[in-house]
Formats: sequence, structure tokens, C-alpha cells
Amino acid sequence: MRSVDLIQKKRDGGELTASELTYLIDGYSRGDIPDYQMSAWAMAVFFRGMTPRETAALTLAMANSGDQVDLGPISGVKVDKHSTGGVGDKTTLIIAPLVASVGIPVAKMSGRGLGHTGGTIDKLESIEGFRTELSRERFMTQVNEIGLAVIGQSGNLAPADKKLYALRDVTATVESIPLIASSVMSKKIAAGADAIVLDVKTGSGAFMKTLEQSEQLAKAMVDIGTDVGRNTAAVISDMDQPLGFAVGNALEVQESIETLKGNGPEDLTELCLTLGAHMVVLGGKADSVEAAKELLRGQINNGEALAKFKAFVDAQGGDASVADDPARLPQAPITIEVKAEGSGFVEAIEAEQLGLAAMLLGAGRATKEASIDYAVGVTLRKKVGDSVQAGDTLALLHVRESSETTRNVADRVRSAYALNAEKPEPRALLLSVVTSEGITRYI
Amino acid sequence: MRSVDLIQKKRDGGELTASELTYLIDGYSRGDIPDYQMSAWAMAVFFRGMTPRETAALTLAMANSGDQVDLGPISGVKVDKHSTGGVGDKTTLIIAPLVASVGIPVAKMSGRGLGHTGGTIDKLESIEGFRTELSRERFMTQVNEIGLAVIGQSGNLAPADKKLYALRDVTATVESIPLIASSVMSKKIAAGADAIVLDVKTGSGAFMKTLEQSEQLAKAMVDIGTDVGRNTAAVISDMDQPLGFAVGNALEVQESIETLKGNGPEDLTELCLTLGAHMVVLGGKADSVEAAKELLRGQINNGEALAKFKAFVDAQGGDASVADDPARLPQAPITIEVKAEGSGFVEAIEAEQLGLAAMLLGAGRATKEASIDYAVGVTLRKKVGDSVQAGDTLALLHVRESSETTRNVADRVRSAYALNAEKPEPRALLLSVVTSEGITRYI
Repeated sequence: MRSVDLIQKKRDGGELTASELTYLIDGYSRGDIPDYQMSAWAMAVFFRGMTPRETAALTLAMANSGDQVDLGPISGVKVDKHSTGGVGDKTTLIIAPLVASVGIPVAKMSGRGLGHTGGTIDKLESIEGFRTELSRERFMTQVNEIGLAVIGQSGNLAPADKKLYALRDVTATVESIPLIASSVMSKKIAAGADAIVLDVKTGSGAFMKTLEQSEQLAKAMVDIGTDVGRNTAAVISDMDQPLGFAVGNALEVQESIETLKGNGPEDLTELCLTLGAHMVVLGGKADSVEAAKELLRGQINNGEALAKFKAFVDAQGGDASVADDPARLPQAPITIEVKAEGSGFVEAIEAEQLGLAAMLLGAGRATKEASIDYAVGVTLRKKVGDSVQAGDTLALLHVRESSETTRNVADRVRSAYALNAEKPEPRALLLSVVTSEGITRYI
Repeated sequence: MRSVDLIQKKRDGGELTASELTYLIDGYSRGDIPDYQMSAWAMAVFFRGMTPRETAALTLAMANSGDQVDLGPISGVKVDKHSTGGVGDKTTLIIAPLVASVGIPVAKMSGRGLGHTGGTIDKLESIEGFRTELSRERFMTQVNEIGLAVIGQSGNLAPADKKLYALRDVTATVESIPLIASSVMSKKIAAGADAIVLDVKTGSGAFMKTLEQSEQLAKAMVDIGTDVGRNTAAVISDMDQPLGFAVGNALEVQESIETLKGNGPEDLTELCLTLGAHMVVLGGKADSVEAAKELLRGQINNGEALAKFKAFVDAQGGDASVADDPARLPQAPITIEVKAEGSGFVEAIEAEQLGLAAMLLGAGRATKEASIDYAVGVTLRKKVGDSVQAGDTLALLHVRESSETTRNVADRVRSAYALNAEKPEPRALLLSVVTSEGITRYI
């Protein structure tokens, strides 16, 4: 087998076999196949696409390229969740204890934040004492005992995907649905879950700009899951603004606690209930998504969800009293109001700009090595559809000191708001669900 | 400017500007832009093509990447010729003295052979004493004095093209008309000629399989020449068999001498007269191709063409008496007959197989470092359209010794002949001419 022949076969519209794709991925992982051949192949895939069979084979080859977590010691159907990324996305903090409280074992590996998006691990570490590095044994034991554990992602999970993604990033070959789908799914499959729920964002602030594209991506991922025997469902939601009000590590933990208490923002609560409900159905604890949603709503109302959160924080060495007294979380000393300069209705809020604003305040890392400040961030006072008068507070910056930087960040947050004289039509948050049985639109 | 953005622009169907293409080629030459970005760009070009403006800009950037020969010291319109490659292609040996004999200055750089195709430099060096390494001054002086010189190609002519071609070869990005056209033209432009005649082969044995593809390639090259102010014409000829009868260095020199005497094979003579006639027209020594052809035919009949060949060989230190006594050329001691096993008419002769056969006998190099044997090779006894009876001699092998290798080569030559019970329709050699004024089909 010669890699140049495989590139040519794909270039000319052929379908690569599983052994051909394994040859490419294994050779690339070992360093036998050079970057310049993989980038040419990736560009050929960009133009020619991949069949579902090819996509599944590529995914498995990447999943097999490093460690593969065996969750066998944990009893029950292990259901994982993955978000395609988003600013202010604290869904894992809420959903993990929520579904664990009804008996779905959650054995989750999460990442740290880089650039404008935050990471679940960083958010959890803003709770004093919280440890995210557990031994494999301790991790399994904790899930068996309290139904839930979240640790940092192993460095050697699907390393071929990591290497290929870095290459795609500098060769304009990121935007290929089969390549995106196999990248996401290879990590999830290596992480060992039996079933997977995907949180796919769509809209101008997201990677996939149209609902059709997002449905294609979701379908590609669900097809892979089905093909490799991991039951998979995807929920597609609108992303014309950040989820909830808080952007920043401790601020998002606080908002998550409020949501687990039943006092969370409506959009965040709705998305968490929906994603959680799909996890409950895949985990076999309810027959329908509606029944599962009711079950979860009950767990919030009866305090079980919050109790599970406290047990989880406690088990990992964190200060569980933050659940009762959020003031024990890191607090920034200064609050700066970002005031509106014009009037109108909020039409959209550029999530990426808010993510960058929080990063510039110290809440995120510009480089892998940078350290972060858990206390700082942004909380929104106005969201899409709200009426704004000049001088109204749009958002608050939570900062260490007032400086040139905070003034620039305030301008950036202000510009992230798009105001319009007319009140926008209300837009649905949940747009579509994709399962192995097909696509169902909510709207 | 970032290369990833330029790759994306091309990927999405955009037109790169001259400065963008220069940025890519200069950065790639310096090593600042890595192979993996250029291969992704080349694959995007494979799918999206390039506009004539882009193709010309890429060509100039590559021509400017190394030495640029200034033929200014030579008076007159310098016309170069290029063949897209072919087995048994000895046209330069014939055309150079032929057109020089009517006053067209020929200042030619040629290459050595690699793989199954022979190189003009190797063929000339089979003449005892012939030197192909002349100083630049000596080269110019010789062209001014006798109208003709042929030297080995400078190692630093269009190095960016050399680097890019090597990359394309291992990334399945060779088969792109704008990339092939700019590769050929960048070297011709750097070599300094005022006008260029291109010898483009078509058919199953050639790189371009159909007449339409060959015309597209020819048009792309003519467009580049026109764009950069080098008058260019292309002659497209059929390649269903090797040109002439001889394959092998000294054997081809001998056949070239016979052709300059007016006793050459019909196909070879016809192609040389046609290509030469276009050079004469571009050089301003005749008003029409037909008139130029008559002029050249006269130069063969009156002995001027052969006289120019002798002066040329003599000026470069070679034994010019080979022109009168071809037996002075290197001769292989043994001749082996390749006999037909079946009967019928010759329908086609696979030129590539004959080139490989000659290489295996020692006439060509399998690797750049290999040495070659000038005497060995193959001479055809049957060509397309000829009737063959079982036991007839199809070809002769000229070898050093009879061995297992020669027996294998004989089988290879035999298999290169496609025989058919019916006599094939006669096929035209010359198919089409492409100039800046358009495409003219001969057939």
C-alpha cells in the first residue's frame, strides 16, 4: 500500500477501505506518513467527502491510536455528553449531577479551556480543594459509590486525532463534516462510554452556520456511533448569544448551583433538561424524552440534584459548602458596569467576543501555559429580546483592578451587543434532534 | 498575509493575486512555508483550477526563484523548443541544427534522462569527446559564431518548481493542467528564450490521454507565454508508438544523422519539420508554416542541416566524423532478435514499455546516480500498421551480453506490441496546433 495511491483514490472520488484508512492513520501516528501527504488527503476529503463507512473506519482508527478507557468496572449504562463548544457553556456542571441523581453513572473526562472557550476542569477547580486528577481506580470507585466523577482528559486519548486536527488547523481543512464528526467521536469512543449525547450549536456564533449543516454534522456523528455500537443522539440548539448570564469560572459555577436549585436562567435550564433527558433515555431510566424531562425537573425541585452536586464536590476534595453559600467561591474585588450608548432591543450577542473579553480579564488562557484567575469574568444584564435605553447596564465586568485593559474589555463587551430599533421575533432555543431513527425538528 | 488564508481562498474558489502567489512560492522556496501547506494548496488547485492570470503569476514566481539566463549577448530572436516527454524522442538533435542552418539562433539547455525517458544531454555525450558543460561566455560565443549550442541545464533554474514538483509527485497533485503548464513554462522562461515551441504528445502512451486535454494543456502554456511576452506555439502529435525506430543513446544519434541526411523515418521527419517550421516562423525567418517547412526541407536536401550538425559537434569537442561514418558511434557487440509469437497487424506499441526495456539494458538510469551504456538499446523493425507473421522479427535488442535480463527484456518488448487481426485505420501524426490566435486542428 502506498499513501500517494490512497490520496489519489480519494481525490478521484473513490471510497477507502477500513484497512486503507487504518494504514493512513497508523502510519501518520508513527510518523511514517508525513504531514504533507495527510494534508493533501484531508483537502481531497474536503472536496470529495467520505461515505458513512469511511467516516466510521477513520473514527475507529483514531480512537485506537492511543489509550482506550475501559469503563467495565462501572455497573450500568455509562452515558457521556459532548458539546461542540460554546462561550459560557456550563452544562456539564449541571447535567452530570442531575442525571447521576436518577442513577445514570457519569464517568466523565473533561478538558481545560484554551482561547475564548472555557473548560469544565478549570471551572470545577475554582472550587477550593477540588481535585481533577484521580487514579483510574479511585475514578471507577467514586462512580460506583456516588454515581459521578469528572477528571481531566488523559493526554493520550486519540493522539492521532490531536495530530491530525493540528494539521487541519493550518491547512484550511477543518471545515469538513466527516472530519469534524470523526474527530469528536474518536475521543468519545476512546473515553469508553456506552452511549453519547451530543450538544450541537448552530447559528452565526457557532461553527456550523445553518441548521441544515448542523443536522448533517449531527447525523454524521450519530451514524458513527450507531456503526460502532454506541447509541448516540444529538440535540441542536440556537447560539445567537451565550448560554445563561455568566462567563468566567467561579461565576459559572455559581450560576450552575442556582440552576440545580431551580433558579437558573431559562435557556440554560431548558437545554440542560433536554440534554439530560436524552441521556436518561439512552441510559434506560425513562421511556421517552418527555418523561425523562419530568423526572429531571422533579430531581431539581426535590433537592436531589443539588445533593448529588454536593456529594460529588465533597468526594473530589472540594468545599461542598459553596452550594449553600456561593460567596465562598472566589470573588473579584471590583465590579465595572458596561453601559449602553444607544437604545433599542438586543438582537444578538456575539458569544465569541464575550469569551475573548473574559479571557482578557484573566478568566481564560491565551496560551496553554498561561495561568487563570477563577474570580474574574462577565455577567450579562441584558439578553436577546430585552429593551435597552442609553445608559442602561448591559453587563458587569468582575475584575481585579480598573485599568486600560478593563476599559478596552468594556468596549469589546459593548460592541458584542447588536441593538435594533425593532423587537426581534422570539427564537426557539431547541431546533432539532437527531437520533439513529432520523431527524426531528422542534420548530 | 497567512498561507492558511491563501489555501482557504483557493479552496473556496477564489482567485489568488500575483502578490499572494509570489508570497507562497517565495516562502516555500525559503523554507518558511512548509510542505504540508503547499500540498494542501496544490490539492485545492487540483479541484478548483487556476485562472490564466493566476497561472501566469505562479509561473513567473517560479521562474524568478533561481537563476535567470540572459540571452541578450546573442543577436536575433532566440527560439526554444520543449517536448512534454517521450520515448525515443530525438527531435532536439535534429531540429536544433536544422533551424540553426536558416539563421535561428539556438541557445539550448537540456536535461539528462531519468527512468524510462532519455535525455538529450546523454544522447549527445554518446559522441566521443562531446562536452555539454560550457562556461556561460563560451556558450554565448558559440551561438553567435555557429548559431547553435546545447548545454546541460543549470541546477538552479526555477528551483521552486523543482521543489514543488517533487512534492506534487508524492501527494497525487501532478495531474492539474495549470500546475503542469506553469512547471514547464517556468523553466523555459528562466532559460531566457524570446519564443517557445512546445511539442505536446497525446494518446494512451502520453500524460494527456485525450486530444481535448492536450489542447487545454497547450492552451494554458500558450496563454502563459503570451502573458509574459514570450511568443509561444504548441504542436500536438499522436503518441501510439515511439517516434522513429531507435530507442537508446547512440542508436538515436545515428537515426538523427540519417534524418538530417533526408533518410529518416517518416514520422520523425514530419514532426521535426513541423516543430522546426513553427520555430522558423516565430523567429521571423518565414511568413507561414508551410513556407518554413519548404525552407527546412531544402536545408536537408542541400546538406546545410547536416553541415550545421557537424559544425555543432565539432565546436563542442565531439567527433564530427560520426556524421559520415556512424560506425564510429559506440556499438553494442550482440544483437538479439525479438520474434513475434502471433500474427496480425501492429495496432499500437507501448512506448513506456520500450523505454523501460532500454533502461533495463543499460541505456537509461533507474536512479539519478546510475551510469549509462551509450551503445545499448532497441531498434524497431515493425511499426503501427505493419503486417506481422509469427516468427517475424519485431525488434532488435542491442546488448553487451545475452543473459536472463536480456530474455526478460525481449519478453517485455514483445508484450509492448499490440497485434490485431484487422489492419488499423491509418492515424494522423499531427493533430492540432495551438497559438495565441487559437486552436487549429489538422484532422
